[in-house]
Amino acid sequence: MYREEIKILDCTIRDGGLINAHYFDDNFVREVYKAVSAAGVDYMEIGYRCSRKIMSPDKFGKWKFCDEKDIKKAIDGIESKTKLSVMVDVGRVEDEDILLCKDSVVDMVRVATYVKDVDKAINLANKAFDKGYETTINIMAISRALDNELDEALRQIEEESKAIAVYIVDSFGALYSENIQYLAEKYKKILKTKEVGIHAHNNQQLGYANTIQGIISGCNFVDGTIYGIGRAAGNCPLELLIGFLKNPKFDLRPILEVISSEFIPMRKKIEWGYLLPYAITGMFNEHPRAAMALRKTEKKDSYREFFDSMAAMEID
Amino acid sequence: MYREEIKILDCTIRDGGLINAHYFDDNFVREVYKAVSAAGVDYMEIGYRCSRKIMSPDKFGKWKFCDEKDIKKAIDGIESKTKLSVMVDVGRVEDEDILLCKDSVVDMVRVATYVKDVDKAINLANKAFDKGYETTINIMAISRALDNELDEALRQIEEESKAIAVYIVDSFGALYSENIQYLAEKYKKILKTKEVGIHAHNNQQLGYANTIQGIISGCNFVDGTIYGIGRAAGNCPLELLIGFLKNPKFDLRPILEVISSEFIPMRKKIEWGYLLPYAITGMFNEHPRAAMALRKTEKKDSYREFFDSMAAMEID
Repeated sequence: MYREEIKILDCTIRDGGLINAHYFDDNFVREVYKAVSAAGVDYMEIGYRCSRKIMSPDKFGKWKFCDEKDIKKAIDGIESKTKLSVMVDVGRVEDEDILLCKDSVVDMVRVATYVKDVDKAINLANKAFDKGYETTINIMAISRALDNELDEALRQIEEESKAIAVYIVDSFGALYSENIQYLAEKYKKILKTKEVGIHAHNNQQLGYANTIQGIISGCNFVDGTIYGIGRAAGNCPLELLIGFLKNPKFDLRPILEVISSEFIPMRKKIEWGYLLPYAITGMFNEHPRAAMALRKTEKKDSYREFFDSMAAMEID
Repeated sequence: MYREEIKILDCTIRDGGLINAHYFDDNFVREVYKAVSAAGVDYMEIGYRCSRKIMSPDKFGKWKFCDEKDIKKAIDGIESKTKLSVMVDVGRVEDEDILLCKDSVVDMVRVATYVKDVDKAINLANKAFDKGYETTINIMAISRALDNELDEALRQIEEESKAIAVYIVDSFGALYSENIQYLAEKYKKILKTKEVGIHAHNNQQLGYANTIQGIISGCNFVDGTIYGIGRAAGNCPLELLIGFLKNPKFDLRPILEVISSEFIPMRKKIEWGYLLPYAITGMFNEHPRAAMALRKTEKKDSYREFFDSMAAMEID
């Protein structure tokens, strides 16, 4: 599949940070940046930009805040054409946290939002745009969005925002390829001046397949993470995505190398990927939090009981 | 997705046997049979039927041969509506190995073949049919088949065989959903009197997604294995397939239970699933044997080097 407009965004450190409270050490972040740069990945999302007044620095590592000095230290001396992005959550960031783009090493600000908060998201994205950043708006939990509310949100984003792309975010890993096709076609119809993005989770081993479906249906911004790292079941594996895209600017080998050196050892320390409790929350179109809690208990492999507990919630 | 004609075939013991030389103990086989029976799975493939004159019983466990007495012992006393199948390989079975169906506990014989051996496969399938069995013909390594040869093979199967279904077998886990769609449409066009089946491997995390694509494109025989067990990257996970199909005759819970009790412990002893060397052989449309050999060496996680060795083979 070759389409020049396709941009890959690696969100290894940002989404991966959700399973270790953003405590990656500098060397790991450097190795990831080196690998995605050598692989020709278009963007790397290095973490969240949160306000320290709102999110406590005692509870989260530095990649929850992404101070300019920390980013600079991690990327120092590494040759790269990869642009950097940070993610901001509606309600967790203040104006003062975002410098003018010309004074920052960050190129893009991605705003994560639920459909209901789209006004705030547009406001936040436009402020970042006015400071000189590229921006995107990422609509989370899309598998729970009411169709009429989503339509209205997309129309509003089209009319009022300066975002270059708007994302389909399957936060619960609940969607099948036919849903992706439906949503991508809807987005493309309404968002005439913007690109469509896809961020898929892997609860049902569909992260990569749904990303391919997104590409087929016209998504030009596609997210992946190295070895699929990310909250719960994780994300579309970047290595598979690069293996699929035939654009000669991409090189798979640096990604394979960093998986061997960094991700195989890390996977022995922290857990992500295809595990039945996450598959079950995906089937039920639920946030993985109940499954994540289960995995910390002795009943972590009692799948039938967990399934029954989810089914009981659904009926109550 | 509800379509009454869809039949699920569990090939846990048969395909899983390729990673332990078919040495499953009786209790494990019983637990699998119990689970798929309680789950409402239509068929269970319990192993290969090979000639002991051709394949040495010193090198393989009993599920390579599937003696009637061994099958009977494993299923004895378990209530079930699940039909039993065995797989036969062209050239590895003799007439005397297949009883009359009325004297056997087996209901179906599936013939595995390459396109080039289709005459032998038709002959073998028709002999089994004449003894009273349901039969299928499973065309392996379909991602390597030449289109004109495949067309001819399918026409011949349509005209000369009594098989109820003909399978697309993505042995190398090399196919994307658009390939599955292409092949399923071709099969359906030529095979006017037969069903189409899909057997997908999971090298690129597409086993399940490709199976869904097969279903959407009209395949009514679909293979899966519990927890995706199978050679190398394994197969379409049965638990995801049952989670997707909405036919009320299926019940996911017995499968979840047997994963907890049998498959989680087994996965600690033998290896299958998403591992980079298998993803790489899938990308190169190669048999996983080089990757399986690699996994037994100290270089099992040297992915870049392995990728380069595969790339060098391709250019030579």
